[in-house]
Amino acid sequence: MITFDGFVPVQGGVCAAKGFTAGGICIGVKASNLENDKKDLAMIYCVRKCNTASVYTVNKVAGAPIAVTKKHLALTSGKAQAVIANSGNANTCNPDGIDIAEKMCKLTAEALHLSEEDIIIASTGVIGQKLSIEPFETGIPILAAELSELGSDAACEAIMTTDTFKKQFAVEFELSGGVKCSLGGISKGSGMINPNMATLLAFITTDVYISVPMLEQALKFVNGVTYNMVSVDGDTSTNDMVSVMASGLAGNNRITEENEDYETFVEALYAVMVNLARETARDGEGATKLLECIVRGAPDEDIAKAVAKSVISSSLFKAAMSAGDANWGRIMCAIGYTDCEFDISKISIELASSQGRIIVCKNGSGVPFSEEEAYTLLSEDEVRIYINLNSGEGEAVAWGCDLTKEYVDINADYRS
Amino acid sequence: MITFDGFVPVQGGVCAAKGFTAGGICIGVKASNLENDKKDLAMIYCVRKCNTASVYTVNKVAGAPIAVTKKHLALTSGKAQAVIANSGNANTCNPDGIDIAEKMCKLTAEALHLSEEDIIIASTGVIGQKLSIEPFETGIPILAAELSELGSDAACEAIMTTDTFKKQFAVEFELSGGVKCSLGGISKGSGMINPNMATLLAFITTDVYISVPMLEQALKFVNGVTYNMVSVDGDTSTNDMVSVMASGLAGNNRITEENEDYETFVEALYAVMVNLARETARDGEGATKLLECIVRGAPDEDIAKAVAKSVISSSLFKAAMSAGDANWGRIMCAIGYTDCEFDISKISIELASSQGRIIVCKNGSGVPFSEEEAYTLLSEDEVRIYINLNSGEGEAVAWGCDLTKEYVDINADYRS
Repeated sequence: MITFDGFVPVQGGVCAAKGFTAGGICIGVKASNLENDKKDLAMIYCVRKCNTASVYTVNKVAGAPIAVTKKHLALTSGKAQAVIANSGNANTCNPDGIDIAEKMCKLTAEALHLSEEDIIIASTGVIGQKLSIEPFETGIPILAAELSELGSDAACEAIMTTDTFKKQFAVEFELSGGVKCSLGGISKGSGMINPNMATLLAFITTDVYISVPMLEQALKFVNGVTYNMVSVDGDTSTNDMVSVMASGLAGNNRITEENEDYETFVEALYAVMVNLARETARDGEGATKLLECIVRGAPDEDIAKAVAKSVISSSLFKAAMSAGDANWGRIMCAIGYTDCEFDISKISIELASSQGRIIVCKNGSGVPFSEEEAYTLLSEDEVRIYINLNSGEGEAVAWGCDLTKEYVDINADYRS
Repeated sequence: MITFDGFVPVQGGVCAAKGFTAGGICIGVKASNLENDKKDLAMIYCVRKCNTASVYTVNKVAGAPIAVTKKHLALTSGKAQAVIANSGNANTCNPDGIDIAEKMCKLTAEALHLSEEDIIIASTGVIGQKLSIEPFETGIPILAAELSELGSDAACEAIMTTDTFKKQFAVEFELSGGVKCSLGGISKGSGMINPNMATLLAFITTDVYISVPMLEQALKFVNGVTYNMVSVDGDTSTNDMVSVMASGLAGNNRITEENEDYETFVEALYAVMVNLARETARDGEGATKLLECIVRGAPDEDIAKAVAKSVISSSLFKAAMSAGDANWGRIMCAIGYTDCEFDISKISIELASSQGRIIVCKNGSGVPFSEEEAYTLLSEDEVRIYINLNSGEGEAVAWGCDLTKEYVDINADYRS
């Protein structure tokens, strides 16, 4: 895990901030979950209504839970008090999907003594399979009674699909006047990961007091440089959603404009979201290593972003990385097919890991390097690719993972 | 192989048309080729100068051979008399790449008693590795002396990289006045296949008499509905090129406008190029089956093309197909993230093969179907996906292949 200056990583995940409890249980959304005791229902609750912001998938085939969450946040002008989320079924492309999602919210509202529109809902799993309400009728009241400040772990587990480890991270920081604040979150990813204006599932909570418009602005900005810069397989999911709930219980001066507190808040949000995003890339389906592509010297930031994402999305480059093969020609190829203009003959490329750093390409052409040294370097589980376009000041970072046979294994057999 | 009404498939490949000879030999472009006796140098020759058209990769990192071919065709206003092509090294991102490509043309011109600018040149293989001129100095004169009307097979073999079978196809047809004409070609593909305005390598020859502008128009159109609709892995290569050489020896009236003869010529070109393109998809790296996605009812043709390509490019859908899993939610997902507008709730999806045809999605939602029947159907080596957007008259077809563990195997180890 990386840390950021001024931010102290703390335990607690989505319950690190004041006012939040969470939990996760196995209710058998799909039959095999019962057999494996795989948690598949998560709940997050706050003692008071939170200012809330969300970003969503741009996929036109958006899941029913996305539609319901959007409706609720519109009705409340950005207030929410609880999250209900299941894995094992995406509740997408079902004729009765909206109805099921609304019933899930109703059950949650009843169990927590809230109104339906106070609930944010999310589902992840297979698309186009009927979702039965029955397990939720039994499970939601049980889960509501079990919520605890130690429940982030269980909630995090319950939203996992093919994820192999939990993604949670939280930080503590100070706003003006020495007010101590917390911000933390949980996330799931693994496959169908190529977020665009939103991503996968991530739920973030904070006790900072901040207006809805400023919260939305902060989330949109930070999402653009974290989750939107991650790709596992180029497939933008139908159910991506990132939500931030702010309880306001820290006692800071309300943030309503771009002041110093706002900047600190954005940095804290970045610290948490960049960690969750990197871990999502690291845990891409079948992945054995995290790829971090740092682009500098682009004509502008958009071009830097496009180049960085193109490289970490190339199947050929990702396959080479799985074998620790310094096939930098595939990096050049992926740079070359981005849809933007710059001078190819100025490009330099370096490969790096904890084992060192080597230059493989200068002025757009190969330079001699030790294949052995490159292999050692690329055998680490975190590899960095530094690309300098030497054509301006634009910078960006993107995260991905290698492409392995296990990706095919997992996805040839995901529904069963 | 599919055939088209009015077109008789014939033998001879790139030598089917009058005036053409070809050949291929092993010269050891890379050392392992000598060990395996893998042919790696191809030549095609015509007894007279041909009107010639080419389309090229849109990758900004274009190989040196692309630059040299463009220069030559510009100098001659679209005339060429021979092709020299090697596999085993892409001659791309090399500081002396242009120099080497020009030397290869010079050697070919000397051996065939032509001018350098009469030569079209292409290279395919690893990017960013020095290409030595020495094997060409010895090999080109030998190959020039061996050219024959039976040489299409050898030339086709010599341009193969990870291809597992030869792609060649030719047809005979009649133009007005009962003039018999031929048109045929050879092609290589396999990986780094996501052509855009051009593709992989394909050399097509014909004895039709046609002006350069009409030849260019025909190639551009047919390429747009054949090679540009193929994707193996989404990686647009640096060295894609399709060239058509027309000797004019058939004796037909010169085609200089969009008359009936032009239409027949376009259909013949389509018959050959669609066959080569489909075979390229079928032989994608690691592929076990050909996927053909037929989109109908789109608001316009561009949207139909975008949807068809999105589906056959989805890693998740391709992985599901490798296991014969009717995971149609991934088709919906890939339709949903295409960057164009239409009504998702009108979509229907059917899956088909020689084993039958089943409907899996109607009005944007799943319909019950037999998983067993679907599995049987999808176990065939040619699978068709019919998508109707029910939103207009636009139609398109795209071709791809399944994603298997062998793709990763091949590409984790391609340079060695």
